[in-house]
Amino acid sequence: MIYVLDLFGVIVFAITGSLAAGKKHMDLFGVIVVALATALGGGTLRDLVLGVHPVFWIADPTYIYVGSGAALLTFVLARFINRLDKVLQIADAFGLAVFTVIGTQKAMGLGVPPVISVIMGVMTGVAGGMIRDLLTGEIPLILRAEIYATASLCGASAFVGLSPFHSSMHFNIYASVLVILGLRLAAIRWNLSLPVFPLKD
Amino acid sequence: MIYVLDLFGVIVFAITGSLAAGKKHMDLFGVIVVALATALGGGTLRDLVLGVHPVFWIADPTYIYVGSGAALLTFVLARFINRLDKVLQIADAFGLAVFTVIGTQKAMGLGVPPVISVIMGVMTGVAGGMIRDLLTGEIPLILRAEIYATASLCGASAFVGLSPFHSSMHFNIYASVLVILGLRLAAIRWNLSLPVFPLKD
Amino acid sequence: MIYVLDLFGVIVFAITGSLAAGKKHMDLFGVIVVALATALGGGTLRDLVLGVHPVFWIADPTYIYVGSGAALLTFVLARFINRLDKVLQIADAFGLAVFTVIGTQKAMGLGVPPVISVIMGVMTGVAGGMIRDLLTGEIPLILRAEIYATASLCGASAFVGLSPFHSSMHFNIYASVLVILGLRLAAIRWNLSLPVFPLKD
Repeated sequence: MIYVLDLFGVIVFAITGSLAAGKKHMDLFGVIVVALATALGGGTLRDLVLGVHPVFWIADPTYIYVGSGAALLTFVLARFINRLDKVLQIADAFGLAVFTVIGTQKAMGLGVPPVISVIMGVMTGVAGGMIRDLLTGEIPLILRAEIYATASLCGASAFVGLSPFHSSMHFNIYASVLVILGLRLAAIRWNLSLPVFPLKD
Repeated sequence: MIYVLDLFGVIVFAITGSLAAGKKHMDLFGVIVVALATALGGGTLRDLVLGVHPVFWIADPTYIYVGSGAALLTFVLARFINRLDKVLQIADAFGLAVFTVIGTQKAMGLGVPPVISVIMGVMTGVAGGMIRDLLTGEIPLILRAEIYATASLCGASAFVGLSPFHSSMHFNIYASVLVILGLRLAAIRWNLSLPVFPLKD
Repeated sequence: MIYVLDLFGVIVFAITGSLAAGKKHMDLFGVIVVALATALGGGTLRDLVLGVHPVFWIADPTYIYVGSGAALLTFVLARFINRLDKVLQIADAFGLAVFTVIGTQKAMGLGVPPVISVIMGVMTGVAGGMIRDLLTGEIPLILRAEIYATASLCGASAFVGLSPFHSSMHFNIYASVLVILGLRLAAIRWNLSLPVFPLKD
């Protein structure tokens, strides 16, 4: 189940990477490079920092096939999509939710302290999108978006907080994914935001 | 002593990260993400490249609490700060000095060749600020600033050069930190610079 | 022979890094930092992801001396170069070709699946240039350039595809390098490109 959710996260982030690269008029293989960096970047960073070897997509190349396939399909089908920015934002919210929770869960499984698990979750969730934005010359979504890191942090904390109370991993995962998705989609829908820095430039 | 200096470096870099994120009007948790990436990024890269596991802030989460706390305080207090760019530049000079010397010293303790120790020091010193600048969509300070990598390189080389002559680690550390701080602050104060590339664009 | 080719790749990527940093009017040591990040970044990422320790330039600091020397020479001689962008593009094509093939070969030597070897090759080839472009505030060449990731992917695939048929490593390496160089230089010369995303912005 977690595996399916993880592959789903790979698919949505690969789609956002493909669309971002496509907006810059890259060719097919350039699109695949950006899609894979987006979809696998966060988890790779997590595995490197946690010292997990081999990295998840070397242990199981399915991730690469699924990510490349999603990029290829997006490349072919993107001409039929309207309102691209909206689709990109919503797909990104799904990827953020799924990767945050899976990253948190993977770190907890290694027995690191709760605060490290939360950070690994947020890192897994936000790093792929940051890499995508850097590679495509965009201002990182984490900067532009309302309640982005906040949503990730709440979901990761919810997962860590729920873990002593529910033996059912499934419930904890779904609940935490829903926390992030709910916060992020609500923020997109109603332009919600936390108080921001009241700085004089 | 080194530990205190290291935490001081975390605090100043977390402040520069917070201020840079705040100038882009990020919300509180976005600010914390950028602050931690700035404060812990250089040392994380150093530990990954040197193959040190667990990474320093997983081994000792104090770094995370201190970095997050500094970000939080900056978020609250920043409205009272004027002349933000000046503060940011000076805090950055302190962080550059402290992290360069601690990175050099940590690498030497692992017995790598002197040239590698110097490079690890420069990497620890400059990478955090580069990550901050990339994440906030700014031109990296290393490019904008006079005598930036140069100051870091001189301090790292001074530390390596001093090590056979003084058994007192404290003296070597303070002297090397002062070399970097002196060079960098003098460059900021008097707009000093080394000869640059005489390129025709 | 592979070692010489590898150092040659370091030299050309160090040159591209120096020129890119020089165009931004960095000082000498800033230029060396960007040159080394460009020349050693791709291979470092490959070694980290594959879990190879120590990283290649820690095991053999020759890479650092060669990269720094090339940056220094470029710094001194760059004033005599005209048509900088052309030189940069062609040097970059050589670096892309050499690093892709050596990265693929190194990964194959570790016994990972063919698809992983291809990805490691592409990562080794394109990451250094991406790091250079990010550090110097440019739009990544992989986005601006025609047939860039495509050339790298074709060469890495050619190397993996040839390996069962030729016991002569030399032949396979030269042939794959030529595939990439040929594709990339032809694309530069005649502005060739693959079909791109037909997106409505």
